[in-house]
Amino acid sequence: MTPSHSHYQIDFQPVGKRVDAAAGTTLLEAAIQAGIDLASACGGMGMCGQCRVQVITGEVSPPNSSETDILSELELGRGQRLACCAQVIGDVKVHIPKESLLIGQRLQIEGEGAVLQLDPVVHAYQIVAPPPTLTDLRSDLSRVLDVLRDSFDLEPLQAEPAVIAQLSPLARAENWRLSVYVRGQEIVGVAPAETHPLGFAVDLGTTKVAGYLVDLETGGELARAGVLNPQIGYGEDVISRLAYAHRNADGRQTLAAMIRETLNELLGELVAKAGVSRTQVVDACIVGNTAMMHLLLELPVSQLAVAPFVAATDLHVDVKARALGLDTAPGAYVYTPPSIGGYVGADHVAMILATGLDAVDKVVMGIDIGTNSEIVIRKPGRPNLASASCASGPAFEGAHISDGMRAASGAIEVVKLSENAVDIQTVNDAPAVGLCGSGIIDAVAELYRWHLLNHRGRFQRHAARVRKGRHGAEFLLVDARKSGSGRDVVITQEDVNEIQLAKGAIRAGLEVLLQATDTQPEEVEEVIIAGAFGSYLDIQSARAIGLFPHMPHAQFRQVGNAAGVGAKQMLLSKQARNRSEHLATDADYVELTTYPKFSRKFALAMLFPNDDHPS
Amino acid sequence: MTPSHSHYQIDFQPVGKRVDAAAGTTLLEAAIQAGIDLASACGGMGMCGQCRVQVITGEVSPPNSSETDILSELELGRGQRLACCAQVIGDVKVHIPKESLLIGQRLQIEGEGAVLQLDPVVHAYQIVAPPPTLTDLRSDLSRVLDVLRDSFDLEPLQAEPAVIAQLSPLARAENWRLSVYVRGQEIVGVAPAETHPLGFAVDLGTTKVAGYLVDLETGGELARAGVLNPQIGYGEDVISRLAYAHRNADGRQTLAAMIRETLNELLGELVAKAGVSRTQVVDACIVGNTAMMHLLLELPVSQLAVAPFVAATDLHVDVKARALGLDTAPGAYVYTPPSIGGYVGADHVAMILATGLDAVDKVVMGIDIGTNSEIVIRKPGRPNLASASCASGPAFEGAHISDGMRAASGAIEVVKLSENAVDIQTVNDAPAVGLCGSGIIDAVAELYRWHLLNHRGRFQRHAARVRKGRHGAEFLLVDARKSGSGRDVVITQEDVNEIQLAKGAIRAGLEVLLQATDTQPEEVEEVIIAGAFGSYLDIQSARAIGLFPHMPHAQFRQVGNAAGVGAKQMLLSKQARNRSEHLATDADYVELTTYPKFSRKFALAMLFPNDDHPS
Repeated sequence: MTPSHSHYQIDFQPVGKRVDAAAGTTLLEAAIQAGIDLASACGGMGMCGQCRVQVITGEVSPPNSSETDILSELELGRGQRLACCAQVIGDVKVHIPKESLLIGQRLQIEGEGAVLQLDPVVHAYQIVAPPPTLTDLRSDLSRVLDVLRDSFDLEPLQAEPAVIAQLSPLARAENWRLSVYVRGQEIVGVAPAETHPLGFAVDLGTTKVAGYLVDLETGGELARAGVLNPQIGYGEDVISRLAYAHRNADGRQTLAAMIRETLNELLGELVAKAGVSRTQVVDACIVGNTAMMHLLLELPVSQLAVAPFVAATDLHVDVKARALGLDTAPGAYVYTPPSIGGYVGADHVAMILATGLDAVDKVVMGIDIGTNSEIVIRKPGRPNLASASCASGPAFEGAHISDGMRAASGAIEVVKLSENAVDIQTVNDAPAVGLCGSGIIDAVAELYRWHLLNHRGRFQRHAARVRKGRHGAEFLLVDARKSGSGRDVVITQEDVNEIQLAKGAIRAGLEVLLQATDTQPEEVEEVIIAGAFGSYLDIQSARAIGLFPHMPHAQFRQVGNAAGVGAKQMLLSKQARNRSEHLATDADYVELTTYPKFSRKFALAMLFPNDDHPS
Repeated sequence: MTPSHSHYQIDFQPVGKRVDAAAGTTLLEAAIQAGIDLASACGGMGMCGQCRVQVITGEVSPPNSSETDILSELELGRGQRLACCAQVIGDVKVHIPKESLLIGQRLQIEGEGAVLQLDPVVHAYQIVAPPPTLTDLRSDLSRVLDVLRDSFDLEPLQAEPAVIAQLSPLARAENWRLSVYVRGQEIVGVAPAETHPLGFAVDLGTTKVAGYLVDLETGGELARAGVLNPQIGYGEDVISRLAYAHRNADGRQTLAAMIRETLNELLGELVAKAGVSRTQVVDACIVGNTAMMHLLLELPVSQLAVAPFVAATDLHVDVKARALGLDTAPGAYVYTPPSIGGYVGADHVAMILATGLDAVDKVVMGIDIGTNSEIVIRKPGRPNLASASCASGPAFEGAHISDGMRAASGAIEVVKLSENAVDIQTVNDAPAVGLCGSGIIDAVAELYRWHLLNHRGRFQRHAARVRKGRHGAEFLLVDARKSGSGRDVVITQEDVNEIQLAKGAIRAGLEVLLQATDTQPEEVEEVIIAGAFGSYLDIQSARAIGLFPHMPHAQFRQVGNAAGVGAKQMLLSKQARNRSEHLATDADYVELTTYPKFSRKFALAMLFPNDDHPS
């Protein structure tokens, strides 16, 4: 096929995908067209530097100022470019380095779970129905309902046409020996005899999506898998995505369709892994923050994106899986738990449920660190939990950090300074390319410990390895000669400031929650840290930079993806759903931005702690 | 656009539609592509002659034997062709005579209705909710539910995402003054304050579709309209359509999509007529025979098309209107009543409901004459109604009759013979083109009365106006010089046989029902005749040809489209739905084909009655 004058062929390597793109298209847009998930924390604004690619042959538009800021002359000389900036002006072959791809990254899908009583919403009934004859002309559905009534005392059930459509041919193929999947008063699917009903649990994160396939009869997990949220292409944080959905005519539809397709593919991966049929999947539970749930359910977001930031709904939703584009048993539902308020959403409710935080008899603080961080305090004696949401931003996930990256190969995850050396540890022990969240926190903590940063976060200008960079002072972590990118890996003054903003947001939120619940930091007995990032976090480093108030008696517990565990629990137990609905109703939502003196608290929280200082 | 070698342009006049069609496409297929509803009782088999068109310019394939059988040389000379036979071999301009179009035909949508208590399934609640503020951060849905609870004592309701999506922008546009449409525990839609909820009732016939728009608060009818069932293109009778759905991979989907689109257009016509919004349409009730309901709901039909002819379901169905492609209030449901058994479907249940036949205190027979005719007997003392379905075929609607046609302009609807003359009356008093159902029955009754037919239905060969035609004896009704088609209008021996088959099927069914309920014909006090055809039928003529057993004490009552009235009642009254479900469960279905000696009864029923003979 010969492209027309204004269209050119873009050949992406090593993935081997080709796409025709109009002149002026950016390489990022072309990659999206080609179905390639390029990292792009800033949503294509030329700010994050994650979408680096290398032009192998052909020409693109000359580098713009974003590119000359972010890329070295050496890199530009090698053909390295930012995909979001470089525009197509002719046929071109582009190499995508592994680090710029969103696939193959380490995803957190483990989590600690509590034991619970198996009582799923959908039950399977094993029946044998008599086939129709000239003297028994009952309809297919009627004869099945009659058996369910006679054998199991079930009242007349409803079934949607899609379920009846499944029944007639299957009953004949299986000689009327069937598993009938029943949810309340409704048949949601049928299957060959003795086929277990399955559930699909999803933790729908802003960045990552974790999926689990569970057996509703045994409670066992059959498969698990993680993928990245493809909406990242429309902005790293929820606010950018809400803005996109709000400002573009089809924005809501676009973002909803994108995540629905990803969930359906994720389910496909799970059933393939487990060697089961999609028609066995009779129930699903999806948890996410308020914004993610709105974007999934295609709910209006205009009112969520501007003050006073009101959700379209904060209640639990039962919706047909089919309506969300999920290929499951024909009548299956998706359950999404209620939210607590603001951006404190269904995932936080699931986390509380999984950790049992709503029921323990001690003072516990729960923190789910992410692009949005949700925090909660349980205090015996106070009837209600108190929750808040902190706009901590994506810095902990490596975004807005000059050499930041996600936890992919070559990411520095551990940093130790000594008198004369910098010791690092990278993902896969690959040559260092950049820093992921835990590495950044380590690095900042170490820099502070060694007085290379003061408690306001300013660099000591005259120390070894501290030098003047393009944007002020910076610390040289890895020399270009030893790095995997041929560039120095540094931490800049701006990076430190980003970390201060992120940790300040969480710290200030924690301070407010303590105050709002009249709790002294000394009273806190346990701190539960949930979420993907939280489980890699070095608690010592986090304490050293003052991410938490000084809580001398607190035990720290890192529980991994508790939200995903909560979602599984809500598949396996009706009671878990009831509990989630009660705890969401009962929890107090604390709006931080309007809390008295919040700005001052936030400013103070950005400082590094004097008292924890180890010198 | 220049068509490629193998595609030609077909220009349909006077409708003014053009379509490109591949070589070999029939003009009927091209007309369907162009969205033109050409009459085609035989489903394009070259048998009914209804799809006559005239080729004005250009060439089509030479006339085949079907065309030379049906069309006169004069007609062929004028370019008249059967659209289902003539194939495209070049660009062509085609004239479609009004008679061949399915639009503009007289459709029966009236019906007698009983008074009933207004108690619809969906109610509107008028609310004023407080808008969100920085100190009142409840979600949009929560604040609406809180008002419904506080003002109307409604328990927490559910709402689907699509309904919530409607709520958020509307609430702001209407300053939180809203009508909230509630069905049971579910909000199905919202609208500006004081906007009445409406319902869409449909009688979905094999041939005709009648739609009604009713106000659920006043019970008043706002609009009504009728269209033809577009599935006619896939066969006039239900068996042909089931066969199509069964034999073709996408057959079910094709037929379902076709009728769903038509229903949605019909609803569009009704709301436009009434000057209301589709979002006010919060409920629908659709009735039809068992086959039509299967094809609407896209249910499997394989088991319905072969012995023992079992329905996929005979229960009532509640399904989202959206799932059937109806653009209504986002959460609206469609209710389809249960069926009684075999092909005795939801429309018959609706007819029984509308006529109150299930509750009267006398012996009543109900007959809904159509392509399938359903019959019922109510006998006080017997707890159950008894119902059966007769495969009467489309002859009464003008199909399978050599000069048969529907009740369009120029159709002979009344025939009177005298010693020397034939008096006819046509629809719109236009020159006669053919005979519609009531005219055919009149004609046959008159021919029998004047001894031109014997009681076996054979023509007197030597009488005036009786002559030898191409297929045996025929009677000349209208001479070519006086007709609207330039052809003689005749009744052939085969036509008489078709009428004998049709009336025999109904008569035999009635005899069986009488016998099965141990009822003597003398006991029958009332005969209710429902359906489009039934209301134009001349009862005297029908009795004269022996359509009914001799029931000397019976009053005949023609009630028009009772099924449509029943559908409206089920929109307006929950109790009517309950009654329909009970009467369907309680009614006895009598399978005629396996009834003892049915074949003999059928053969006898085809004869004309000796006793009623007026000579």
